[in-house]
Amino acid sequence: MHHPVRNKNGETIASAVTNLDLHDISRAAKTYGVKGFYVVTPFADQQAIAEKIVSHWTDGYGGVYNPERKAALELVRIRESFACVVEEIRRDHPLGVQVVVTSASDKKDALRFEDFRRLLTENRSAYLLVFGTGWGLTEEFIQAADFILEPIRGGFAYNHLSVRSAAAIILDRVLGSPV
Amino acid sequence: MHHPVRNKNGETIASAVTNLDLHDISRAAKTYGVKGFYVVTPFADQQAIAEKIVSHWTDGYGGVYNPERKAALELVRIRESFACVVEEIRRDHPLGVQVVVTSASDKKDALRFEDFRRLLTENRSAYLLVFGTGWGLTEEFIQAADFILEPIRGGFAYNHLSVRSAAAIILDRVLGSPV
Repeated sequence: MHHPVRNKNGETIASAVTNLDLHDISRAAKTYGVKGFYVVTPFADQQAIAEKIVSHWTDGYGGVYNPERKAALELVRIRESFACVVEEIRRDHPLGVQVVVTSASDKKDALRFEDFRRLLTENRSAYLLVFGTGWGLTEEFIQAADFILEPIRGGFAYNHLSVRSAAAIILDRVLGSPV
Repeated sequence: MHHPVRNKNGETIASAVTNLDLHDISRAAKTYGVKGFYVVTPFADQQAIAEKIVSHWTDGYGGVYNPERKAALELVRIRESFACVVEEIRRDHPLGVQVVVTSASDKKDALRFEDFRRLLTENRSAYLLVFGTGWGLTEEFIQAADFILEPIRGGFAYNHLSVRSAAAIILDRVLGSPV
């Protein structure tokens, strides 16, 4: 999500799309069997840049040079709003879409990783796992979700992972083979 | 490690340093209490670029703007060879340095994540966890290590994570709080 997210001062902004987010998160998604990776930005120019990067790998020379990148980036779908994403998933999932947001800070009644893992195996709904860029999703957006996932704990006070690292770790905790 | 690694054709090369590797891996290292993050490249110009990026955050305006980046990037040490890194760590660790290499493919007698976790708690040696860039560490380098860590399993055939994602997931599996 590039909007609605916060900047350093807590103001609601739209952040810029980062090339390596597309690569890293699509590769992690492909590794763990995720069905789709939506990138949300309201800006037409940002959508165009992201589409151009993705199509280089899915339709252009990139896919010939590196078929593994093609397989990952084929998961990427660039959309203008979160509402569009939910609507699109709902069309293919009559049992509904459950929205699970992530946050680096502790929230009341957070969903534990092990409970999310169990929900995914027991339940037939679609689950949409949401990551904010910039300084994170807005509080209003977080509170409107069906579930708030517990933050990643490294065992120390520092909790400033990149969105790329956080996505990789969370997919591994929720979908990876048990250690 | 930017050398000795393989390119797409299996030839031994030195890969280019990537800005976001420095940020993402240092932030993950800081999250999980890692003592240092060494970046190895034999090229003086690449060393200079990496030092310039790091010093912007540790000594320059970046550290004022974003102290959390400063705290992470202070872990980065750029060195010209793997031998220099081992020698440097050994100086501070009279009980020695154990080298643990990572690989995306299955290797004979691989160290399991849970066993590595146990080694770290039971043993007083320093452990140096090594990640290759490009198409991975050379086979010769891998076979010379004390341990080869088992690959990350996502439960599917695809195993092409970025080095940034792989480092984040492995640190979480080995040092993170149990799920």
